[in-house]
Amino acid sequence: MAEAGEVQDRLGDPAPRPSTYAEAGVDIDAGEQAVARMRHAIERSRTAAVVSQLGAFGAAVRAPGANTLLISSADGVGSKVCLVSSHAEAAGIGRDLVQHCIDDILTCGARPLFFLDYLAFSRLDPDRAAAIVGGMAAACAAHGCALVGGETAELPDLYREGAFDVAGCIVGTVAEDRFLDGGRVAAGDALIGLPSTGLHTNGYTLARRLLADRLHERCGAVSVREALLEEHRCYLSPVAPLLDRGIIHGLAHITGGGLPGNLPRMLPTGLAARLDRSSWPMSPVFALLAAQDLPRRELFRAFNMGIGMVLACAARDADGVLAETQPAYRIGEVIEQRDEARVLGLA
Amino acid sequence: MAEAGEVQDRLGDPAPRPSTYAEAGVDIDAGEQAVARMRHAIERSRTAAVVSQLGAFGAAVRAPGANTLLISSADGVGSKVCLVSSHAEAAGIGRDLVQHCIDDILTCGARPLFFLDYLAFSRLDPDRAAAIVGGMAAACAAHGCALVGGETAELPDLYREGAFDVAGCIVGTVAEDRFLDGGRVAAGDALIGLPSTGLHTNGYTLARRLLADRLHERCGAVSVREALLEEHRCYLSPVAPLLDRGIIHGLAHITGGGLPGNLPRMLPTGLAARLDRSSWPMSPVFALLAAQDLPRRELFRAFNMGIGMVLACAARDADGVLAETQPAYRIGEVIEQRDEARVLGLA
Repeated sequence: MAEAGEVQDRLGDPAPRPSTYAEAGVDIDAGEQAVARMRHAIERSRTAAVVSQLGAFGAAVRAPGANTLLISSADGVGSKVCLVSSHAEAAGIGRDLVQHCIDDILTCGARPLFFLDYLAFSRLDPDRAAAIVGGMAAACAAHGCALVGGETAELPDLYREGAFDVAGCIVGTVAEDRFLDGGRVAAGDALIGLPSTGLHTNGYTLARRLLADRLHERCGAVSVREALLEEHRCYLSPVAPLLDRGIIHGLAHITGGGLPGNLPRMLPTGLAARLDRSSWPMSPVFALLAAQDLPRRELFRAFNMGIGMVLACAARDADGVLAETQPAYRIGEVIEQRDEARVLGLA
Repeated sequence: MAEAGEVQDRLGDPAPRPSTYAEAGVDIDAGEQAVARMRHAIERSRTAAVVSQLGAFGAAVRAPGANTLLISSADGVGSKVCLVSSHAEAAGIGRDLVQHCIDDILTCGARPLFFLDYLAFSRLDPDRAAAIVGGMAAACAAHGCALVGGETAELPDLYREGAFDVAGCIVGTVAEDRFLDGGRVAAGDALIGLPSTGLHTNGYTLARRLLADRLHERCGAVSVREALLEEHRCYLSPVAPLLDRGIIHGLAHITGGGLPGNLPRMLPTGLAARLDRSSWPMSPVFALLAAQDLPRRELFRAFNMGIGMVLACAARDADGVLAETQPAYRIGEVIEQRDEARVLGLA
């Protein structure tokens, strides 16, 4: 294939023939340095369920009791990493990834148990790697999730000069009788939207291009660049008490695909979501994106447009849920599906 | 930071302003196509423990019984991906990743339960993505492991033109009283080496540079390129019966860092491994690498040099283990540690 060939062809460059791994672009010592710097942060995320020590081939965690489901998800943060210019921002990317993953399994009713990461660089920068993993470990520790393992790779032939990518995998638990599989959502249910802090971790390849020449302009109280770097919000704290009381019928995490792509994932066949687009406020970053020359369909498909998590609950519980999860908005309702469209009211 | 800046600066290129996500380099339809093509292969890896359906935010798997540990590991396959030129080879990369991960948790005595993947492209090629995930799913299905989730990302700003990267996370189980944590290995134990099929998934950035102009030469029965693409061997089948009988004291998966980097991970403090370098044969690809102008220390640190998994067992069990796991070699023994060196006999 032509594409793979281009990568492979870099080998034909008249570069000096390497006589060590480091000269070939992979510095094992830098890798070991990075691991040493991460160690302390990782140890702080350790929980009572963890059995193994750092450095083992596999991480060992005590399995939960009977009648429990393990809920897992893998994800990345997309090209948000391209905006990072400081170690503090790199740490934010680490928190983004963990909080995104916690939100994913929260939609099944699950609490986090453990997390593993994959981190790849064109050139391994031990300080940056330690900052990213430090951010992950801090977000894990804050949410009772152990950061038990990971891989840090240096791949100069795959990544653009200076680039890095992060991905992670979370495993959580939920009692079988509290598992949210979408089957509990019914026509007439209220849809409550919890606001996002910004784009979270989706739509960055498009947003960065649209706003490339405006990154240093103001956007509310911060710059456009800072607004784009706002952290992926973790919805565990506001949602967990509602899960414990069995009030929630369904949850949708609004990631890639936006409201039209993600709301159907919590709806049983035969149901649709009718939204009122004026029911929630549009923060400055979304107002700015909406003012660009993009078809509305693309806008709502690429960005969460201000809503990061949607809860379905019985209409009679809606006011209580709204009061308990402020800021929150009643953004629509579940209706019987009349045609192909599963999400109405955004056009 | 200068590095991140370089990536970010690409936004300043005089490229046409995108009016859709696809024009910005991210094709959501291609993503959906890729998922549709993966679906069948993924469904075939489904096991009795899986509760959720494809497409949920989180995958649900029944937790194992009491007194069980969950063993997890995350990994990638490094720059081996740069050698891929056909869909069949892309599928091999998928199998590589799963088999590598199964071997990682096998060292703790664990059998695989489920797997999740992360796949990122500069330009999403649905056929190639389907081939890679098809390979993963096939390797999962062959080893009783469910492929329950994953993420496919298109990140033109992070990856070099035509490049892709794969990473994955595995979760397995082991009964608490069968957990291998290194504590069972004792002085006098025999070390049995199980041969690798080649470089497996480590050392490729160096090997590709060393052998760049020899990829089409012969290397045993195949070309150098084909020898480099040999699949990461999965050691589950030969090792599992020995685990069931409690014969194995420790296992080391020989990945990045080679024998000197990985053998110490299974040794309790105060013990070292004494190897006899002439005790196992060197296959053509390692003979070729050994003939390059590399310091011997680098050679054994970058490559597995023919041994992919090392078992420690009581000396009296060694002959039985050798007979049962053919091809296998008695490559050394565990000794009390006299100085700093943990792995002797490779210099």
